[in-house]
Amino acid sequence: MAALRRWWGWGKLSRSFPLPSYAQESLFAELELTDRSANSTSAVVEPELPHLPEPRPLAPPCAFSQAFEDRLRCATGRSTPDLLRLRFNRLLHAPDGVVLPENEQQIQELLRWAVDNAVAVVPFGGGTSVVGGVDALRGDHAAVLALDMQKLNQVLDLDEKSGLARIQAGIFGPALEQQLQQRGFSLGHFPQSFEFSTLGGWLATRSAGQNSTLYGKIEHMAAAVRMLTPSDPPSQVESRALPASATGPEIKEMMVGSEGVLGVITEATMRVHALPQATQYQSFFFPDFASGFGAAQQIMQNGLRPAVFRLSDETETRLLMKLGGADRSKGVKLLRLLGKSTYLDGCHFMLGFEGHATLVKAEVSAAKSIAKRCGGLGIGSSPGRRWEKERFELPYFRDTLLDMGIMVETFETAAPWSKLPALHQALRQQLPASLILAHISHAYRDGASLYITWLHDTPDPDQALELWQRMKQIAGEVIMQHGATISHHHAVGSDHKPWMMQERGTGQVQMLRAAKQICDPHGIMNPGKLIPDS
Amino acid sequence: MAALRRWWGWGKLSRSFPLPSYAQESLFAELELTDRSANSTSAVVEPELPHLPEPRPLAPPCAFSQAFEDRLRCATGRSTPDLLRLRFNRLLHAPDGVVLPENEQQIQELLRWAVDNAVAVVPFGGGTSVVGGVDALRGDHAAVLALDMQKLNQVLDLDEKSGLARIQAGIFGPALEQQLQQRGFSLGHFPQSFEFSTLGGWLATRSAGQNSTLYGKIEHMAAAVRMLTPSDPPSQVESRALPASATGPEIKEMMVGSEGVLGVITEATMRVHALPQATQYQSFFFPDFASGFGAAQQIMQNGLRPAVFRLSDETETRLLMKLGGADRSKGVKLLRLLGKSTYLDGCHFMLGFEGHATLVKAEVSAAKSIAKRCGGLGIGSSPGRRWEKERFELPYFRDTLLDMGIMVETFETAAPWSKLPALHQALRQQLPASLILAHISHAYRDGASLYITWLHDTPDPDQALELWQRMKQIAGEVIMQHGATISHHHAVGSDHKPWMMQERGTGQVQMLRAAKQICDPHGIMNPGKLIPDS
Repeated sequence: MAALRRWWGWGKLSRSFPLPSYAQESLFAELELTDRSANSTSAVVEPELPHLPEPRPLAPPCAFSQAFEDRLRCATGRSTPDLLRLRFNRLLHAPDGVVLPENEQQIQELLRWAVDNAVAVVPFGGGTSVVGGVDALRGDHAAVLALDMQKLNQVLDLDEKSGLARIQAGIFGPALEQQLQQRGFSLGHFPQSFEFSTLGGWLATRSAGQNSTLYGKIEHMAAAVRMLTPSDPPSQVESRALPASATGPEIKEMMVGSEGVLGVITEATMRVHALPQATQYQSFFFPDFASGFGAAQQIMQNGLRPAVFRLSDETETRLLMKLGGADRSKGVKLLRLLGKSTYLDGCHFMLGFEGHATLVKAEVSAAKSIAKRCGGLGIGSSPGRRWEKERFELPYFRDTLLDMGIMVETFETAAPWSKLPALHQALRQQLPASLILAHISHAYRDGASLYITWLHDTPDPDQALELWQRMKQIAGEVIMQHGATISHHHAVGSDHKPWMMQERGTGQVQMLRAAKQICDPHGIMNPGKLIPDS
Repeated sequence: MAALRRWWGWGKLSRSFPLPSYAQESLFAELELTDRSANSTSAVVEPELPHLPEPRPLAPPCAFSQAFEDRLRCATGRSTPDLLRLRFNRLLHAPDGVVLPENEQQIQELLRWAVDNAVAVVPFGGGTSVVGGVDALRGDHAAVLALDMQKLNQVLDLDEKSGLARIQAGIFGPALEQQLQQRGFSLGHFPQSFEFSTLGGWLATRSAGQNSTLYGKIEHMAAAVRMLTPSDPPSQVESRALPASATGPEIKEMMVGSEGVLGVITEATMRVHALPQATQYQSFFFPDFASGFGAAQQIMQNGLRPAVFRLSDETETRLLMKLGGADRSKGVKLLRLLGKSTYLDGCHFMLGFEGHATLVKAEVSAAKSIAKRCGGLGIGSSPGRRWEKERFELPYFRDTLLDMGIMVETFETAAPWSKLPALHQALRQQLPASLILAHISHAYRDGASLYITWLHDTPDPDQALELWQRMKQIAGEVIMQHGATISHHHAVGSDHKPWMMQERGTGQVQMLRAAKQICDPHGIMNPGKLIPDS
């Protein structure tokens, strides 16, 4: 598999995201890069392979590889700094080897061996972390192994009456959906990384998908979770699949989001649903972000449940229209003809409803009436249908941009509705000057996420990494000042660890450390991630 | 307040639930108590006051009472065994005194004092636990105090834009709703105990209310929780109000459901909603429980979201119709005339929808069409409207029955849909012979609750307590054998503690104990509840 992947970037070698000349020119103009000119070649140029530290000799008790390509594949995630480090030979760490256990017993034996040999273990799913969650750090241990879960990849059981599927953690998105859909069911979890990430990774990071506004984040979909721990003696923590219970604190919520620091999530029982009877997209233009925001809030607070929810701010709307060529489309020409071109300076709000046909129809109708009251103009379903086709393509764009000398980083947060407008404003004002796009992709009765795309001309790699660090620091400060969370769905990893004390407070962090102490008393699990150092 | 309450039973002295003669006779017939005859007096006879153990001398650092009525009020909860023990002077424990702190600082000082003086502390809200959750047990401590939260009873803040209300934990249901509703909002949490229970109690026990199928159990409504702990040094655990987050394990879920064993929940930020635009009840008769069950399942799995959901089995339907006089109503006469009287041996399914008018209308229409396909007969909204008026009256009925020499106990569970029919059957077959009613009151995509009412002729108090114990033991075994939970919303307390190891497994219990150790290292908080003894 590794051979077909782009080791220095996103996804498959066979795919890319070439940008037409007119789009390149638009982008240069937006970024005020007056000296650049569009390049019509779209050939993918492979950088030179980076240097990896020498692996330490190890003999773990299961299938094991110290091959360069395996170690490289499991060395780091896919954040923009990761990509820069991969491209420019600045990787400081790699696992000493990769183990590929075939079952829980092998994992349990491996954990015992790792404790006995003081070897750190980093659970590894698809390796798409954008927060340094899978960086092969060994902490103060003798060595570090990546525990690649890819062989635990089956849907073990489907209870069709209850809509509950017991699934192994190492399964990738497409295989999971395929195994369910051939029986008429779907998990409905479609993160941007869907094709290259695993159920275990989603659970470990409290992942959200593009349909999560209806089906919930992965933690809401998980009815039960099973985790193996290197405790004394080695043990497991597992919950039972129950629709709800009142039997004390919910320990399942300690496993979900544990980012590999407590143990290895090996399987989960997931809430799945029959494939929807009806699906309908509906897009609107709003004169500005504020009016679209008002509609978004009312839609959620009136109990509508869109599956897909995407409200772009003015800058994002303008740039995506330019890059996609939509500003030259028939629809846009029609708007100009109709004298409604002011909407084109406004913002795009896309909703997608799915489920029971009667309900979908009512929800679309309610959404239209709320949108109209808030100043929105319905523009039909075609933007949604187009988006659906391209929904997993955007990460490839990051590589195209890096090839063009433009760095793009995304980060996201969430806050109560009342706090979002000021947060949006502050981020736009305070981040290092660049092009800043924002959208809301997940919404709730009490608030929403906010997703920021930050584009900047890339100076040389070291300056770029430094600039990224400065941007990240400012973003974190602004997020905290505004009572928002440091992550809605990207998780903590290494990058957000410095904010965890502020995010959670001493009391919560002490409880996290107590959980770590009981599950992983020797501290071998994914060192340096999630839990603040004491 | 205590003076106006029925110390030996439910609620207010001024209210009761007298049973007309025809209803008494129906009940005797159902229970095959051929020697009983209806009694037309409905006078409430107060039993003799029970004996309480002598209080130990104590001087805690805040408002404090050792008055008999306060100690009696906070001695125990309101399970059927509690009522038997109160009526028949078999109470074995009472707090040495009751403290009534006015703010968090006083609570923190009290906890510090309790640690220093080895005094156990039982957080006390409304005292309506039906699982021994507030029994004043002192464990191996010198004394035990009830910490009555009633003075922390304010809605502190309402963020109308986000629908978030910061509320003190000691507030009772009616005051909470009144303070919110005068500003156009509602929490929408209506447990049977609503009038006499508190927000803190709901949170500590993972309470469910009569509208929870739409708004969620209390844990879904809680955006943030704040808990004071007697840790070394005394501390607090608090979370921030966020719509969602991906920053590691959710420690809030360790506070919710903690039943006073980790600390004192002092306030929470709750998700509230604007008062609904539309409300509509819709009832159906189904020929039998199986067909009603099929409709229930489809309603949830098609994404409908009824607020009120109540599917009674055949026995419950028959008894409630008899007791309420419905079997002599015009509607029932009409059914007989129409030749549809077989439905009267079937089961009643009541749904209540509320929210945005367009959606409510669509949901009622979808529910009707699903019900029809499953063999249901629509009987309109009047059963629902009648139920709404009487929704908090039923607990008084328990006292009336005990006065009549009939013991009634309720317990509840939840399981995936696929496991519920066998569970229902097994409970009906294996519980000690008696009258057994069942209904589903909370439903989810993947399963539902099951609520059992067990009626039995009451022998003398000691035999009754023994019989109850036998019933409870069998119920627990059957529930566990069928993969269900020992409680969907009544919680654990003392009564369900023996099942916790089976419910959760060693791994989870170890994590619970680790949380206990860090929050309450001296073990003063609510001893003997929730966490299995090691």
